Amino acid sequence: MFSSKWFSLFSAAMLATTVSSPISAAQNVILIIGDGMDDQQITMARNYLHGAEGALTLDSMPARSAVQVITRASEPPFKPIYVADSANSATAIATGVTTSRGRISTSVEDADLRLISQDLKEAGYAVGIVSTASVTDATPAVFMANISRRFCENPGAMQGEQGRGLFTADCPEDLIANGGKGSISEQIARSPVDLVLGGGMKHFEPLSESGQQTVLDLARSQGFRIMETLDDIAAVQTELNNSATEAQVSEANRSSGEGALSSTSATGSAAADESRLQVSSSLRLLGLFTPSTMPVRWISSSGEAAQYPEPSMLNHVHEYLGEVELPEPVRCEPNAAYGATPPLAKMTELALAQLSQRSDKGFFLMVESASIDKQSHARRPCGQIGELAQLEESLQLALAFAEQSPGTVVLVTADHGQAAQIIPDGSMFAGYGIPVYTPGQLQRVITPEGSVMAMNYATNEFQAEEHTGVNVPLFGNEAAEPFMRPFLQQSDLHGLILNAFGLSE
Amino acid sequence: MFSSKWFSLFSAAMLATTVSSPISAAQNVILIIGDGMDDQQITMARNYLHGAEGALTLDSMPARSAVQVITRASEPPFKPIYVADSANSATAIATGVTTSRGRISTSVEDADLRLISQDLKEAGYAVGIVSTASVTDATPAVFMANISRRFCENPGAMQGEQGRGLFTADCPEDLIANGGKGSISEQIARSPVDLVLGGGMKHFEPLSESGQQTVLDLARSQGFRIMETLDDIAAVQTELNNSATEAQVSEANRSSGEGALSSTSATGSAAADESRLQVSSSLRLLGLFTPSTMPVRWISSSGEAAQYPEPSMLNHVHEYLGEVELPEPVRCEPNAAYGATPPLAKMTELALAQLSQRSDKGFFLMVESASIDKQSHARRPCGQIGELAQLEESLQLALAFAEQSPGTVVLVTADHGQAAQIIPDGSMFAGYGIPVYTPGQLQRVITPEGSVMAMNYATNEFQAEEHTGVNVPLFGNEAAEPFMRPFLQQSDLHGLILNAFGLSE
Repeated sequence: MFSSKWFSLFSAAMLATTVSSPISAAQNVILIIGDGMDDQQITMARNYLHGAEGALTLDSMPARSAVQVITRASEPPFKPIYVADSANSATAIATGVTTSRGRISTSVEDADLRLISQDLKEAGYAVGIVSTASVTDATPAVFMANISRRFCENPGAMQGEQGRGLFTADCPEDLIANGGKGSISEQIARSPVDLVLGGGMKHFEPLSESGQQTVLDLARSQGFRIMETLDDIAAVQTELNNSATEAQVSEANRSSGEGALSSTSATGSAAADESRLQVSSSLRLLGLFTPSTMPVRWISSSGEAAQYPEPSMLNHVHEYLGEVELPEPVRCEPNAAYGATPPLAKMTELALAQLSQRSDKGFFLMVESASIDKQSHARRPCGQIGELAQLEESLQLALAFAEQSPGTVVLVTADHGQAAQIIPDGSMFAGYGIPVYTPGQLQRVITPEGSVMAMNYATNEFQAEEHTGVNVPLFGNEAAEPFMRPFLQQSDLHGLILNAFGLSE
Repeated sequence: MFSSKWFSLFSAAMLATTVSSPISAAQNVILIIGDGMDDQQITMARNYLHGAEGALTLDSMPARSAVQVITRASEPPFKPIYVADSANSATAIATGVTTSRGRISTSVEDADLRLISQDLKEAGYAVGIVSTASVTDATPAVFMANISRRFCENPGAMQGEQGRGLFTADCPEDLIANGGKGSISEQIARSPVDLVLGGGMKHFEPLSESGQQTVLDLARSQGFRIMETLDDIAAVQTELNNSATEAQVSEANRSSGEGALSSTSATGSAAADESRLQVSSSLRLLGLFTPSTMPVRWISSSGEAAQYPEPSMLNHVHEYLGEVELPEPVRCEPNAAYGATPPLAKMTELALAQLSQRSDKGFFLMVESASIDKQSHARRPCGQIGELAQLEESLQLALAFAEQSPGTVVLVTADHGQAAQIIPDGSMFAGYGIPVYTPGQLQRVITPEGSVMAMNYATNEFQAEEHTGVNVPLFGNEAAEPFMRPFLQQSDLHGLILNAFGLSE
């Protein structure tokens, strides 16, 4: 039936397909960052949310790697140091360059670094940034801005007080008047990205450096539609759904039109296309749903953070004497302050709906679950766990989306380690009959399976715990596997994402 | 040329091969356990040994998973609790059963659990156990003994003092006279395993329960050859090499004899076989190279462990006042007490040489690097790092062996988390100009790349830190990959190892 020549060609083609098996580029990449989400914080959430014998959605991811976090000293010769902050660690992801703490996509020598969002926008992809922090906070900011200090979040914070190191918001050299790019909120307002959702309205209310308008109005003038409430999200989602439906109808009409030469439907199709374009172009979205960091979902039933154990007087005389009273166990409860805050999953859902309509080429979406970190700083394990539950819900949406759109790479990682440790509830050495307890602050959480999980916060006695230097996990879905390696440096994530899109670094 | 029927069969066979692709069973499994080696301890070693931008041999392993450590309370209803000790965590690996802290391969109800070493010996595999701890310590012990309390390490420790919980060595019910199996050292002496190397001679010097002989003599009477020094290792290695060479000569002679009918070489072959058998059977090895835990390779240049920062008087008045003096930075130096202690790699090398001759079927080798944990308890990062370097060397040998013997699965894991955390050297909040420092104990280590890595130990103020509840990593070589999953429970390792050998759990 077939000529042997044809058959040979066919075989050769089959063989080529089988042997070379070229990795096809992804259409979309969804990067979820759990801020401060090292393995201690993950295990804490797993134990609470699913029991010690349970598993997170994270645990179902088919690929898992370790990521070494690299930080440089802020002074020459910029040697490596061993603990990062979110600014330098997220900069590594967004630019591929390691830098020093507090820097937003600027090098140790204060050069502006090229952003992955620029590369992707220029290549025709849509780009969205979602966070439960202020959108001007370090992790979202590195994808949209270049500035020397992370706390220069708005025009009013460009010439702050001196002498607080990392926490100085003092960037006169970054003022537009001085040849810089202005504050983070102004840079976001001018950013080409398609969607920015999170907290941080207070950074958009001040007048922009020019003094002509607020940063919010600046964003509006740049084509951003501003959203402030859950209702706004619902309204935009309805528009997006209508637009998607119209596009489908138009597509269907065009298809049928091809066969039936129906001029009516052809006209309809053109109208729908135009309508879709209008909706799309009106839909560069800037959602600022809270003044600053979004409230967290859960809080301890006592309302308190971790506390110091209270040794008896006798124990102050000698460490082997007396007794110690540990803080009372608590449960995790809904945080009344959460109110009508948009859940991270709601923002993620909107982002997926909008970004998948913004460009036929595909999109990059970064979703940050910020308060795993912030609540560990604040020694609040329930806040951390509720926030990780939010990350899980967003991950479930991302995986469901990837199920429908197989060319979607889903990655989850953390930027750096955090202070919280699970320690024994009651010392392993309690058998010695002397009081043995942490020098740090402790919260004992009653888990749904009825045991007590003791979380220790003991990196300092200040109002905020330190980060830690542990390597962090990276999880990937099946589409991510071809681009992953079991061990990588954090800056390698930049190339990994570009490679997934078929772009070179 | 071919009948269509034959062709169909051929195609079907090809298809079956392609589709089912049966995983072939491993000949050998090498399981390396870094005691307490969670990601913090790994990152600390990576930073010190290779620099922040470097990589460990561990990092080169192609497969990486997370392992959830599950511990049960010691009282009914035996609910999960969140921090393990080495006894219950290694029991999960050696038996597939989760139990409570302090238990050596016994269930929460105190039933003896079947050991993986029994299964493997009965299936014809050689089994070896190597550790830098006493061989009676929890991690090695679970592979050779069933007993209710881990500190019942020798006949003299079976009826110790009461009331110290985990640390009680009081197991009257485990006395042979009471129907038990006797102390851990006696159970090791009677164990069918082929090789046991480590520390712990002091647990073999007491008289066995019968009072007739020392435990060491009991071991001798059971066919163990006793080794005590590096020289003993060298001597046995020479014998093993000779035996291997004779076996090769014999094999060569037999091969040539087959063709040439040389009665001389045939006789020679039989003699060599007999000689090999003699050497092999004489080579059940019990090496006890130190009285207790082996000394570690490295110590801080100050000789000190981590220390408390020293705040000035004014800081005692108010936390925002005064100053703090952090402990002086140290370097890691060779530990003079290490002396002629056999390195873990030397023991591993001997084990590989002996076990690969003990059974044609294959072998299981467990190698424990024990003092990552013990030196974290003792707040000594240099000791931890030097010990992890020992694990790396053993891993390199294991991987080289696997390179030569492709049916060798190499796994590396940890049993539980440990206290040490890498924190910023100088608080992230130092910019506030107030003294911010850990409430725990700190060691600041000058790394070879010239930075200072600050290790925080702050789970208690007792003479030994607590373990932590973090999930631990699992690394595998290529041969291990088919048996691994990205997330598993610690007890799943038991089935993973059996499955690798083609055995069912």
